[in-house]
Amino acid sequence: MRNILITGFEPFGGEVVNPSWEVARHLDERSLEDAYVIHAVQLPTAFHAAKMALELAIDRLLPEVIVCLGEAGGRAQLTPERVAINVMDASIPDNEGDRPIDEPIDEAGPVAYWSTLPIKAMVTAMRAANVPAAVSNTAGTYVCNSTFYALMHYVSAQKLHTRAGFIHVPYMPEQTLARSAPALPVETMVKGIIVALQAVVQTAEDLPLADGQTH
Amino acid sequence: MRNILITGFEPFGGEVVNPSWEVARHLDERSLEDAYVIHAVQLPTAFHAAKMALELAIDRLLPEVIVCLGEAGGRAQLTPERVAINVMDASIPDNEGDRPIDEPIDEAGPVAYWSTLPIKAMVTAMRAANVPAAVSNTAGTYVCNSTFYALMHYVSAQKLHTRAGFIHVPYMPEQTLARSAPALPVETMVKGIIVALQAVVQTAEDLPLADGQTH
Amino acid sequence: MRNILITGFEPFGGEVVNPSWEVARHLDERSLEDAYVIHAVQLPTAFHAAKMALELAIDRLLPEVIVCLGEAGGRAQLTPERVAINVMDASIPDNEGDRPIDEPIDEAGPVAYWSTLPIKAMVTAMRAANVPAAVSNTAGTYVCNSTFYALMHYVSAQKLHTRAGFIHVPYMPEQTLARSAPALPVETMVKGIIVALQAVVQTAEDLPLADGQTH
Amino acid sequence: MRNILITGFEPFGGEVVNPSWEVARHLDERSLEDAYVIHAVQLPTAFHAAKMALELAIDRLLPEVIVCLGEAGGRAQLTPERVAINVMDASIPDNEGDRPIDEPIDEAGPVAYWSTLPIKAMVTAMRAANVPAAVSNTAGTYVCNSTFYALMHYVSAQKLHTRAGFIHVPYMPEQTLARSAPALPVETMVKGIIVALQAVVQTAEDLPLADGQTH
Repeated sequence: MRNILITGFEPFGGEVVNPSWEVARHLDERSLEDAYVIHAVQLPTAFHAAKMALELAIDRLLPEVIVCLGEAGGRAQLTPERVAINVMDASIPDNEGDRPIDEPIDEAGPVAYWSTLPIKAMVTAMRAANVPAAVSNTAGTYVCNSTFYALMHYVSAQKLHTRAGFIHVPYMPEQTLARSAPALPVETMVKGIIVALQAVVQTAEDLPLADGQTH
Repeated sequence: MRNILITGFEPFGGEVVNPSWEVARHLDERSLEDAYVIHAVQLPTAFHAAKMALELAIDRLLPEVIVCLGEAGGRAQLTPERVAINVMDASIPDNEGDRPIDEPIDEAGPVAYWSTLPIKAMVTAMRAANVPAAVSNTAGTYVCNSTFYALMHYVSAQKLHTRAGFIHVPYMPEQTLARSAPALPVETMVKGIIVALQAVVQTAEDLPLADGQTH
Repeated sequence: MRNILITGFEPFGGEVVNPSWEVARHLDERSLEDAYVIHAVQLPTAFHAAKMALELAIDRLLPEVIVCLGEAGGRAQLTPERVAINVMDASIPDNEGDRPIDEPIDEAGPVAYWSTLPIKAMVTAMRAANVPAAVSNTAGTYVCNSTFYALMHYVSAQKLHTRAGFIHVPYMPEQTLARSAPALPVETMVKGIIVALQAVVQTAEDLPLADGQTH
Repeated sequence: MRNILITGFEPFGGEVVNPSWEVARHLDERSLEDAYVIHAVQLPTAFHAAKMALELAIDRLLPEVIVCLGEAGGRAQLTPERVAINVMDASIPDNEGDRPIDEPIDEAGPVAYWSTLPIKAMVTAMRAANVPAAVSNTAGTYVCNSTFYALMHYVSAQKLHTRAGFIHVPYMPEQTLARSAPALPVETMVKGIIVALQAVVQTAEDLPLADGQTH
């Protein structure tokens, strides 16, 4: 069996759960298409520690596909990210108390990396499974983006053949009971991530689906 | 067995489904607390026809509890409505082509009716069941509000002992696959409506839960 | 000269200014159409004290037109309110520390009062002056709504021939410098209120402009 | 006098005005700090033609500072962009009918360019002038982003010492009269752009102001 690595984050910003980990842990040990097995790993919501934990997991599992998940409170859809940028600009301290402002993630790294996942095929597959989805053009400047950038930088530096990327997920209803914010149940998100992973392993070249933003 | 009437609307405004009916029809023939049976009736999304169909269903079923459901695209929570107002002001034609502007629903009726459902207890029960919920202070000025007003006016005019009101529900994910709008799966909404109905039959006097709006 | 009374509120909810008073005080002592003079009065943001201060101002000025203004943080347009409802449901304490939950404003009053201002003509006039405007169907359940209800109840009980109502206004840019919320400069809002007042004194019967909400 | 180039776009997407050009043309021929003169140039809202027109203007004016403005309907603040990415993904055709999907702007260019404007100092200056402002981490994937990318690529390829970047601006009230969307009057935006330009010419190294996004 070939390995797929999926990661989710610890809760942060005062929340007691993080939907990215709730989704990831539901997928742990699942097989996909009789050829892959999914391994879920929780990452700390901290700039440095997340990078370290992710690299360790990659070294251990040698995955063919890596998808990091992160919480995007306020978004209504599952959003595969297009691009990771080489900056940390923290609006709140991370879970280790670090709060970098406009520092590069890697001093010698390029400005940005593209996701190497077929993001349009993934969006198409999720919508076909009745899961709201869209491409996102910003992963922010906090731990989600820095982990995504560190992932792509490691895959590049180590010359791995792994396809890798990041998906932001909305709140779960448990987090929005008394506030007006979009949410999707974990079951809906798990269904979406499974068909997105199927799209990854089935798609060599991405689909020419328009899913851009005017701004 | 005592009867509960739940209604949902036909699709309107270019949509092919209406979550209010999808939720209602899932509840049809269900029993509640071994004492009630739920009857689901679909209403036309038209000012006049909805009123007629609703009054017929009330006469036929003599329900103890009536909850009309309606779609509120853009809302993120299940929202029991507090008040129905005596005006029709249609931003789009209804499904019969009527588009009244600032006309009263009932020439001789009062400005407004309160819901006679325990809306705070319903919200509390839904949140306890992990379903996002909040009281709403406006049902709009379209067919949802006019049906809600017609319901309360009929109950009042006929001197029925029925408790009655209205709940707006969000889009389903099927309706928001490619647009950024909040949605909840029909299963989540069905779960919410069931515990809300349980709260109705268990609650004689509403709870003093603050759930107001500053505007 | 005939009198027009315009009111605005004190700051509340942690804000240091209240756009409703900033707008109102810019209009104080202005004449309108060579026939009216505008008097601005600040009301406390407190359920009981606002009602007292408003009734005093009415008794003193005997205005022909009364427009109470209130802040609606998050709205993008100037919104004449259609209806005041007979309930106080405070999500935060008022400036005197009161926090009523689901209490009537007037034990013997009707469920609701309509605004007696030509709200459609006002919206039309504001838009014609390049000021974003729309009818609102809920003034909330806090001090704005209770003052609006108390106003209409007093006019009704005293059998005054005054035309009266309420307009919610957005934040000013000074309040949204570092957060993503709609705002309009006080100059834009003052321009809007002036043309809205002109529409009031020029309009005997309101315009049949559709400006309703589906929910 | 040293030259500053400011650009705005033609209307697009069914709008009859474009606030980016309304702001830019108000600044044409203005001097700044007795040392600079601002030149406003309108760009076509088309992938190829905008790039051509921009390069022509740069060659003609040899500006020390270049700020391209673009409309971001739905945003509430003036938003200096942090990064331009090397992709065109058009959700609607441009004004010449082109609709590229996932094509690079420059086949040989890097994934992304940073703005070389002091975006934090600009945001700080605008807020100090009572103009809502924030850093944005995505300029989208349409003509705004492609023009921003083409700008940075040209400055880089030509080894110019010009500091350059992009600012997205909200709708004007004229565009939102009857819809609920944030807007700022052109006067407010002009005031903001002037102080932002002053910040550019006064700031050698950007300020360490946190203004990031968690996603």
